[in-house]
Parts: sequence; structure tokens; C-alpha cells
Amino acid sequence: MRIEINEAAEFFRQNDDYLILMHASPDGDTLGCGNALCTALQRMGKNAKAVCPDEIPHRFDYLSEGVKQQEFEYRTIVAVDVADSKLLGDMKELGDMADLCIDHHESNKDYAKRLLLREHYASACELMYEVLVALGADIDRIIANCLYTGVATDTGCFKFSNTKPQTHITAAKLMECGAEIAPINYAMFELKTQGRIKLEQEVLSNMRFYGDGHVAVVSVMLDTLAKLPDVDSDDVGAMASIPRQIDGVDIGISIKEKKQGYFKASLRSSERINVADIAGGFGGGGHARAAGCSFYCSYEDAEKQIVAAACEALKQAGII
Amino acid sequence: MRIEINEAAEFFRQNDDYLILMHASPDGDTLGCGNALCTALQRMGKNAKAVCPDEIPHRFDYLSEGVKQQEFEYRTIVAVDVADSKLLGDMKELGDMADLCIDHHESNKDYAKRLLLREHYASACELMYEVLVALGADIDRIIANCLYTGVATDTGCFKFSNTKPQTHITAAKLMECGAEIAPINYAMFELKTQGRIKLEQEVLSNMRFYGDGHVAVVSVMLDTLAKLPDVDSDDVGAMASIPRQIDGVDIGISIKEKKQGYFKASLRSSERINVADIAGGFGGGGHARAAGCSFYCSYEDAEKQIVAAACEALKQAGII
Repeated sequence: MRIEINEAAEFFRQNDDYLILMHASPDGDTLGCGNALCTALQRMGKNAKAVCPDEIPHRFDYLSEGVKQQEFEYRTIVAVDVADSKLLGDMKELGDMADLCIDHHESNKDYAKRLLLREHYASACELMYEVLVALGADIDRIIANCLYTGVATDTGCFKFSNTKPQTHITAAKLMECGAEIAPINYAMFELKTQGRIKLEQEVLSNMRFYGDGHVAVVSVMLDTLAKLPDVDSDDVGAMASIPRQIDGVDIGISIKEKKQGYFKASLRSSERINVADIAGGFGGGGHARAAGCSFYCSYEDAEKQIVAAACEALKQAGII
Repeated sequence: MRIEINEAAEFFRQNDDYLILMHASPDGDTLGCGNALCTALQRMGKNAKAVCPDEIPHRFDYLSEGVKQQEFEYRTIVAVDVADSKLLGDMKELGDMADLCIDHHESNKDYAKRLLLREHYASACELMYEVLVALGADIDRIIANCLYTGVATDTGCFKFSNTKPQTHITAAKLMECGAEIAPINYAMFELKTQGRIKLEQEVLSNMRFYGDGHVAVVSVMLDTLAKLPDVDSDDVGAMASIPRQIDGVDIGISIKEKKQGYFKASLRSSERINVADIAGGFGGGGHARAAGCSFYCSYEDAEKQIVAAACEALKQAGII
């Protein structure tokens, strides 16, 4: 059942003992949303706990500043920024029992009893901001930091095309509420571990170009990662954006070795190429500018196949 | 003479034949401001031309989309985003004759006949937006792209502490006017030449750590740059931010060789250290978190001296 913002606020007033579910491979949006809601509910005198199936990277520690540990038996389940209960990993069954889902993904599977969805919002945190305003919550520095984190991380700090005028307006309001944007943005966008730096070097030094320089390919192999113990999945994921940053590249490809003989390719493109179509040809999918697919073969075969498809797309677009 | 926004608008209505000065080593703010103003004045039926003492990097080409080449003798000089006529290079004398300066630098030298200054604005483009609104200019896609470019580039895409709630509000308004944020941000913040990538690799592979990992030093030597002909001054400047991005680093130092025996050091710091003080000890200066100074000696001596001063600052702060 689709519900609206004031109905969600009423739901939070009437219920208690909340278990808040945040998605696996947690990002700033699900964590910001979950911790902001948990903090606000506890301040209303409710019991609440925000949980995530995966370990939460330490750079997000500040998001739980306002959360108290409470012992209680949950009676109400709320999923935030979770498009599909499958994205809850080990907690999928809890997701399937969710009383409410608050989300911004067009692909939301409508798995919860109630759904508050805003597909055109760049982040779930923008929607959570409106829910908390409707609840009359005091959006102080701590909650504003949580919500700002989701807004900033889901938009690449207002860089991506999902950023809307309203996204900037919400950011302005969160700053007025005390959001500490400079240290948050430093932690989210600038700070790198020494392992991450080494991984970038390794990836850059092995970049290969095809199609008159319009295709760039990088690879992340398991033996490289084995030498870099402080590299996390976030660091590896960030490699996907590197090849497309090179001047002249229309299709950036990063190929990650998942297991021996099993590779995942991430594709990024300029507005001249639809990489969802390329990935679709290998049973994958995604968006026009960011898509992915898998290969069960040798590394050489995987690269050969994806590069051939990329070059074919360049030809069809009249680029080469 | 300090003037206000509506006085600046009246000035533009009453005068004609404008020469608009943009500062040397041009950035997105001075170029965005100058081209937005030039476009708006030409549309009012005035003659206007925006000039810069240095070559304008090609990635800024789109900023002059709305500007027509006009032949006329200038009678009115306006400097935009120029804190000091010295920053006009070969055009310093024109700057000293400026009828109006529109700027946001606290350090503005008040060199022009009239000064419209907003020291607390993150960018001159935010101020220019207000001037153009007061002028009744049609802020369409072309002008909005110019103004957005200045707002985004001067704030690191809304990442830095100079970003204010009002900065986000102006960005929202410029988006409503048609600013094409995704391609602009890609060109300003993501796109890198192959030379830039090679320079980053070179710099990263030579990074040195001192003071228990709280100080990181990189160097950019002339013989490295000689091997990378497509690297521009912007690329070299960007190296200054790299060492501070490393986890655990409180003081990031980049040392650039300007001539044999002449080096410039750029310092960046966490909020625990004031690098303006460190730079001041060597006759330099700047801000608490970003400062610089020069050395006339061998590279080894320069690095030794600045690292010793950095370690001393860490000790005084109780960090090591």
C-alpha cells in the first residue's frame, strides 16, 4: 500500500519498538536515513534500533552519534533506502515482514506492507528529512549530519544528474540545522587509505585503450587485492569510475576478478553510448550511463568479448 | 567607493563599451562571471568584451557560448573576481583604471573606482547572479551555465567549508534557469588528460611520510613535467591536495620546482594544524588550512626545512 508523508509520520507516532533495516553493502544514504530515524524516534520516547546485515565501515561511525543502545523486543519493522528485500542479505526475512519501507528507488519491489516512495528524489535522506519535519522532530546538528551525508553521497556531492533544485534546497536547510559539511565531505570524498592509493596506482598503471582511445579498460585481480589488506569493497568499487575520467574516453570498463574464472565488468559511458545495451548483450543490465555484467571464462576472453561489444557500439554511434 | 547591488545594476544601465577583466591563471569563477556579464550586457544592446591576460584552458570553451565578437573602443572597465590589479598580469594597468570591481575576496585591495564586495560569498558568480537579477537580465541556460560553473568550482562542488546555505539556494535557482550541471561537473571535476593521470602516478609513487605518518610530502620536478607535455598548470596545482587525502595525514606538503634552486611549497592541513603559521616562518602565508611559501636552495634542503617545521607543529599540537 502506497502511503504519503503525513501517513508515515502518523505511523511513527502510533507504533513503538522499531527495528530499522539498512541495506547490505551499506552506503551513506541508508546509514544516514536509518540513524536519523532511530535518533528521532528515541527522542520521542520510543524504542528503536537500526541494523545492517554487513559491517559498517568506520568512516560512518559519526552517524550513530545520537543513537542510544536500547534493549527491547522489536514489534515494528521499517526498511530505509532498501529497494528489494534481497538487498538485506541475511536479514531478507525481516525485510519481507517490514511494516513500512521508505525509499527513493524506481526499482522498488513494493515488498513491505506500506511504501512511502519518491522515485524522483536523489536520496532517501531527502525524503526522510520531510518525514521528520512532518513528525515535528528537532532536526539538530546530529540528525542534520546524518541526512546531509545521504544527500551528499548519493549525488556525488551534488555532481551527478540526479541532483535536482530541491536537493540543493534540502542541503541548504540541513546546513541551517547545523550539518557539518566540510568534515563530512572530507571523510566521504577525499580521504583515502594508503591501500586505496596503492590500488589506484596499480589500476592506472595497467590501463589499456581500445577503439582509437574511446574505450579504456582497467582490471582488479584477486592477487592484487591479496597484497593490499586494508582495501575494502568501497575502494574496489571506486575503481569503476576511473577509466571514464580520461579525456576522450566514451566507454570506461573495469573488470573485477570475483573468483578464478568468474569476472564482473562495470561499464560507464558518455551520453553518446548506452552501456545498459552492451551489458544486456551479456545477460547484465543497469542504466544508460552505468551498467554491469558477468563473465565465466578466462580474464583474456572476458576482456576480449566486452571490448569487442564496446567497439561495435562505438561504430554504430558513428564515433569510430 | 563601496557600492551596492542596485547601484552596480544602475552603473551597467548608464554606461557602455565595456572591457571586462578576468584574472590571470583563470578559474571557473572569474571566467563564469566575466562571460555571464558580457553576454547579459550584449543582450542589453551594449558593446562588451571579456578578456584575460592568460590563455583560457579549452575545457572552459562552453562559457563563451553566448558571447558575440564585437569591434569597439572600450570606455568602461570592469574587473570580476579580481582581488588585486596585480592578479591581472600584463593587464595590471587596465585594472588600475577599472571603473568597477565585483568581487568576493576578503583580501580585495579596493583598487577600482567602485567596489561591489561580498566577502562572505563563496564565489563571485553568486554575487554576479544577484547583479544580473537586479539588472532584469534573462538568466537562460547559457548564463546559468556560466554562473553555476563559478559557484561549483570555487566550492569544490559544494564540498568545502566556504559553502553556505545561500550557495545551495543560488545553485537551485541556476538549475531552474537551465544550468546543465552533469556535463559541467564532469568537465570540471572528473575529466583528466592522460598526462594528468601520469603525473598523479609519478607523484603518488614518490610520496614520502614523516612524523609517524602525520606528514606526507610529494614533489613535482621540472624534469617530470618535461616528459608530460599535455600537463597544464591546473594539473600541477591539483597535486597540492593529494597528500592530505591520505588517511592519518594532518599536514600535506607538495613541493614544486619552479626553476633550478627555486621551489614553491603548498601546505594543506587538518583542523588540528594551522599551516599559515608554518608558511609564515618561511616568509609565506595563506589560510589556516591552505598556505604556501618559497625556498631558494636545493630540493633536499627545502624538503628538510619544511618537514622539520611541520613536525615541530605536530609536537606543539600534541599529535606526536
